Amino acid sequence: MKRRVGICTGGGDAPGLNAVIRAFVRDAVQQRGWEVVGIADSFNGLLEQPHRLIPLNPNATRGLVRRGGTILGTTNRGNPFSYTRANGEKVDVAPELAKAVKEERLEGLVCIGGDGTQAIALQLMREVGIPVVGVPKTIDNDLSATDYTFGFQTAVDIATDALDRLQTTAESHDRVLFLEVMGRDAGHIALEAGLAGGADIILVPEIPYDVERVAACIRDRAERGRRFSVVICAEGALPVDLAKGKSMEERWELLRDGGGAANIAMSSLRGRIQAEMRTCVLGHIQRGGAPCAFDRVLATRFGVAASRLVDEGRWGEMVRLRNGVVDGVPIEEAIATYKFVDPNGQLVSTARAIGVEFGG
Amino acid sequence: MKRRVGICTGGGDAPGLNAVIRAFVRDAVQQRGWEVVGIADSFNGLLEQPHRLIPLNPNATRGLVRRGGTILGTTNRGNPFSYTRANGEKVDVAPELAKAVKEERLEGLVCIGGDGTQAIALQLMREVGIPVVGVPKTIDNDLSATDYTFGFQTAVDIATDALDRLQTTAESHDRVLFLEVMGRDAGHIALEAGLAGGADIILVPEIPYDVERVAACIRDRAERGRRFSVVICAEGALPVDLAKGKSMEERWELLRDGGGAANIAMSSLRGRIQAEMRTCVLGHIQRGGAPCAFDRVLATRFGVAASRLVDEGRWGEMVRLRNGVVDGVPIEEAIATYKFVDPNGQLVSTARAIGVEFGG
Amino acid sequence: MKRRVGICTGGGDAPGLNAVIRAFVRDAVQQRGWEVVGIADSFNGLLEQPHRLIPLNPNATRGLVRRGGTILGTTNRGNPFSYTRANGEKVDVAPELAKAVKEERLEGLVCIGGDGTQAIALQLMREVGIPVVGVPKTIDNDLSATDYTFGFQTAVDIATDALDRLQTTAESHDRVLFLEVMGRDAGHIALEAGLAGGADIILVPEIPYDVERVAACIRDRAERGRRFSVVICAEGALPVDLAKGKSMEERWELLRDGGGAANIAMSSLRGRIQAEMRTCVLGHIQRGGAPCAFDRVLATRFGVAASRLVDEGRWGEMVRLRNGVVDGVPIEEAIATYKFVDPNGQLVSTARAIGVEFGG
Amino acid sequence: MKRRVGICTGGGDAPGLNAVIRAFVRDAVQQRGWEVVGIADSFNGLLEQPHRLIPLNPNATRGLVRRGGTILGTTNRGNPFSYTRANGEKVDVAPELAKAVKEERLEGLVCIGGDGTQAIALQLMREVGIPVVGVPKTIDNDLSATDYTFGFQTAVDIATDALDRLQTTAESHDRVLFLEVMGRDAGHIALEAGLAGGADIILVPEIPYDVERVAACIRDRAERGRRFSVVICAEGALPVDLAKGKSMEERWELLRDGGGAANIAMSSLRGRIQAEMRTCVLGHIQRGGAPCAFDRVLATRFGVAASRLVDEGRWGEMVRLRNGVVDGVPIEEAIATYKFVDPNGQLVSTARAIGVEFGG
Repeated sequence: MKRRVGICTGGGDAPGLNAVIRAFVRDAVQQRGWEVVGIADSFNGLLEQPHRLIPLNPNATRGLVRRGGTILGTTNRGNPFSYTRANGEKVDVAPELAKAVKEERLEGLVCIGGDGTQAIALQLMREVGIPVVGVPKTIDNDLSATDYTFGFQTAVDIATDALDRLQTTAESHDRVLFLEVMGRDAGHIALEAGLAGGADIILVPEIPYDVERVAACIRDRAERGRRFSVVICAEGALPVDLAKGKSMEERWELLRDGGGAANIAMSSLRGRIQAEMRTCVLGHIQRGGAPCAFDRVLATRFGVAASRLVDEGRWGEMVRLRNGVVDGVPIEEAIATYKFVDPNGQLVSTARAIGVEFGG
Repeated sequence: MKRRVGICTGGGDAPGLNAVIRAFVRDAVQQRGWEVVGIADSFNGLLEQPHRLIPLNPNATRGLVRRGGTILGTTNRGNPFSYTRANGEKVDVAPELAKAVKEERLEGLVCIGGDGTQAIALQLMREVGIPVVGVPKTIDNDLSATDYTFGFQTAVDIATDALDRLQTTAESHDRVLFLEVMGRDAGHIALEAGLAGGADIILVPEIPYDVERVAACIRDRAERGRRFSVVICAEGALPVDLAKGKSMEERWELLRDGGGAANIAMSSLRGRIQAEMRTCVLGHIQRGGAPCAFDRVLATRFGVAASRLVDEGRWGEMVRLRNGVVDGVPIEEAIATYKFVDPNGQLVSTARAIGVEFGG
Repeated sequence: MKRRVGICTGGGDAPGLNAVIRAFVRDAVQQRGWEVVGIADSFNGLLEQPHRLIPLNPNATRGLVRRGGTILGTTNRGNPFSYTRANGEKVDVAPELAKAVKEERLEGLVCIGGDGTQAIALQLMREVGIPVVGVPKTIDNDLSATDYTFGFQTAVDIATDALDRLQTTAESHDRVLFLEVMGRDAGHIALEAGLAGGADIILVPEIPYDVERVAACIRDRAERGRRFSVVICAEGALPVDLAKGKSMEERWELLRDGGGAANIAMSSLRGRIQAEMRTCVLGHIQRGGAPCAFDRVLATRFGVAASRLVDEGRWGEMVRLRNGVVDGVPIEEAIATYKFVDPNGQLVSTARAIGVEFGG
Repeated sequence: MKRRVGICTGGGDAPGLNAVIRAFVRDAVQQRGWEVVGIADSFNGLLEQPHRLIPLNPNATRGLVRRGGTILGTTNRGNPFSYTRANGEKVDVAPELAKAVKEERLEGLVCIGGDGTQAIALQLMREVGIPVVGVPKTIDNDLSATDYTFGFQTAVDIATDALDRLQTTAESHDRVLFLEVMGRDAGHIALEAGLAGGADIILVPEIPYDVERVAACIRDRAERGRRFSVVICAEGALPVDLAKGKSMEERWELLRDGGGAANIAMSSLRGRIQAEMRTCVLGHIQRGGAPCAFDRVLATRFGVAASRLVDEGRWGEMVRLRNGVVDGVPIEEAIATYKFVDPNGQLVSTARAIGVEFGG
């Protein structure tokens, strides 16, 4: 009897999800001869009657290397350990999920998702005995266990394109333009896109900024005849006086109430500088659509590595890229530490060396 | 003595401004042997002492066919008939401008700008005798005198790319996503990008929308298993009950207070539909950066045509594209009528035929 | 009983084919309530047993607005009036096709294809009574009956991108670079992309070039310090001494034997100029992949217009764009005349005005 | 007296050259207060009278992060140790170069270039005492001393875009399409773009291919209903029977005589498969134009690191990226070994796992 494995995707969008699925399926089905089924909508497909499973084979995954989104869907009603039934009731459906996995004769599940999904996957393995292999997915590239996650470089590309466009307008029309990009807790997208797109000022959550220092930078530029500035701003960036002593939750409340990080930055500069200011918020544009070549290659490697981990019975591990090689790492270890922008790291130093202002 | 002509750019950014300048200069200087000077910052370069003029020749305009923005700048302190001096005083400097034009021995001015700039140019010609030739510039393509203005197609391309990216996320993650694009009074960008990007719902200022009808469209889709929708929304679109009987100014106040058209649309749908909703606001991203091929060709044709109008002494005319041919039209006639989206026109009918909902 | 219509695609690829199919289907099925079937592989699906028909509805055409290629396929064994059977035999299968159309209860066929396909469609209508509506498809935009065909603008965009890339290399490394683009008989792609991409020299079939004049242009540039040149070259461009007095067929033989137009141009310049030379041949890259926004809108309009022509019983007509409006024109009239680059037309004059050399 | 350093670029184009120059200048001039001069046209600017030097400062390098090519030019008359004078005479001008460096009071030279340039730089340091710091440049990413070189990822992006476009045509029109990309000795571009673009067959110099095995793959696909294939082919790929026992030079002769790798592959398949075949040759398109975000960040890091190496007196070293960190490595060590595609490495295995055929 053929080996039979499930695969599912959880959490927000990231370009490359489909490429992981395709690569896993091609290796598992075509090369290894297994059966693979996709679980519809995260774990949900196994929690509904009848089960919603999508038989996967090379035909069903054709063309997915370049397609954004996920053919498996991700809508879910939350964590199986605290699941919201259609009738609103909150229950622990993990045992039910384990039963469904057995009924469907699935040897285990490949779970593509962020650190939340990985933590749940690990808990499912430990508490109800569902064997899992993880594939990390975070557009923010904020997992210390892997050098890169797919989707990140695509987001950087899109944000860089936006900066390229804003640059000419800012310069010709003497504007201070703010581009808000993703990054609630980690500012990697803002930092790399800021470097690539020639931003004058980069604001990230890890370096709370001094408003006056930012204003001084813009005024200094104006005195040198550069009467414009381009600012890239992670969605979690806050001025130092607002951020100081606040928990993550409190910061998020501040950001929401202030209309977002770019809006707060713009408002705080009002009165301190002269130029007209405008904000642009990329939002979901930076996490949808076709992945760039880098992310397609990475996602393909992750998909094939997931198949290898399954083959070697390395349940409880997550694939990751480390120094050019894709291998497995225990999920427990993988989700233990975040990767933040290091204010003293080489990338920030490089940015400072070419004159980028961080405001702190 | 060589003929000598000035050129200036006014108003907001539009991809192709530099391509017009380059084409005008190449034809006027290289082929016709004239001298061309750029007036810095709209008319301002002639209103300051010393005059800020930029000598233009093929060397100075190299590579401009693909560069966004304008090398001449546009910062201005307003209409010469009601000009704000550095000290804040409001004065009519039109006679001073006419004097400067004579002092600089400029035969006339080529004025690239929107309908505001064109109206001023015409007034300058009539009231203080400055010969002008106009080149229309409106990203919104809302001038009835010309079939296309440069910058419009680039904006449509950018908005279409954004829709392509939003589409996969909306579909995979069951979201209703709103993309707000430019178009205060005319919804051409939203309409064409909506058609090109496969939007489910298009909201334009010319068709005030019935919120319930939009909600019904989204719910109907959900019932057919399409639990997501992509909405493109011009920045001037309003629900019919808000728009009814309001002047343009009142509408704009409503939009500002409501946080923009996309935000108003999203808020008004809350409670009527179930899906999670998100907005993206492209802002200046859609009016900066490299022009697309179509706009480069159009801008080049406009630049060369402006040189021809000057050569033929057709002052007071504006270049325009009509049925594939670029020629001149009296500015007076050109700025007399706007071009709005025709709710009964072929493009809207085409959109309706493929099932697009306008909400009205 | 529902009306039932077939649709098929013939000839080479052009971005937008799928967008036409999608728009036709959405209008015909969703709005009008007809049944639509796609004929697999041009007319072939009706000439094989069993018939290969693809039932089309909005579900089956989802996402096609942005997808290149054609879901219907185009492989064929040629003109039904001179068809090559699987066994190699050549026969007239037009009556068989007419019979199949009746058997399948198809009211008529919408035929998307080039002038060859249109001519055959018309012949099928006249000789064996198959009602047809045409949708023109030529990447070269060389049909005089329509202002634009879909796919053309996408090809121009791709060629312009290529020129942008070649430009920096040519300039930094003092090269003369040749880009060969499509256009056997008509040089519209080379002309528009050349204008948009800032080519120094544009070679088109309609203006046979004097090699020495091209060489002189390159040498003149070098003397002015521009030790590089970028040349765009339609695949049908030939030097005047080779082209003179030759038939189309003879010219094509010359081009094939010479390794293509770019290679012939490069070889003919050897010895006359000093710079290093290189050629790039875009080939099929410029006729595949996602259509640009302009082509998606046009293709959508064509698809909806085709449905309208069918509805109004206007068999024997072809859709076309004329002065901003899409309507129908008798196929007979539509295919009567080609649209060549007019050596004295406004676009060529514009190019000459900005200093582009045509070599003739 | 200010420290004074020269910078020059040698060899072929690679997107990111200008970004290196900009970053080096911003750090060296703005932060460290040095003087920087660009040497025009590789070493040539110091070998002509008067010297052609370009004073570099942040103003002069504005906008260069996104601009392809090199503002310094690269035309040269060869290796200073075997230099071709304007009169054709071959001489050793290294001592003259050393003298010029002293005259111009340059503390040393930052040399951006391929392994050839690096070898010459090292020789100049050793034999005539010119202090040098190297910045590696190879579009092929074939230097084992660094994990990535700038320009490579841009080339992969461009080749991937081309594959995306070819894919739809191949599929809709049942073609076998060949895309030839750069890579004379190392097939990294073909391998990564092939993975990213979903190529069916990847041909690289490191894995000489068995023509019959490639043909069988195409025939097998056809039997499974996939009557098309997309082949990506490095410019140095050869069939095993042609490559066997040949030196690099002999292989290159074979490739030239055969009209290039794609053409040889296509010709060798003729008669073995049925589908129509076509080739596309990207040529210089893949090495010009704007760098992608990844390459801009890398080039910026290289530029800043070069300034640091100079500051620390680490002459004779070259910057490189190793495991996420940019530092210096002795040039001697850096150019000692090439990085070829490893036929048993993880990327090739990954490609095989998803069913890609290498023909060997």
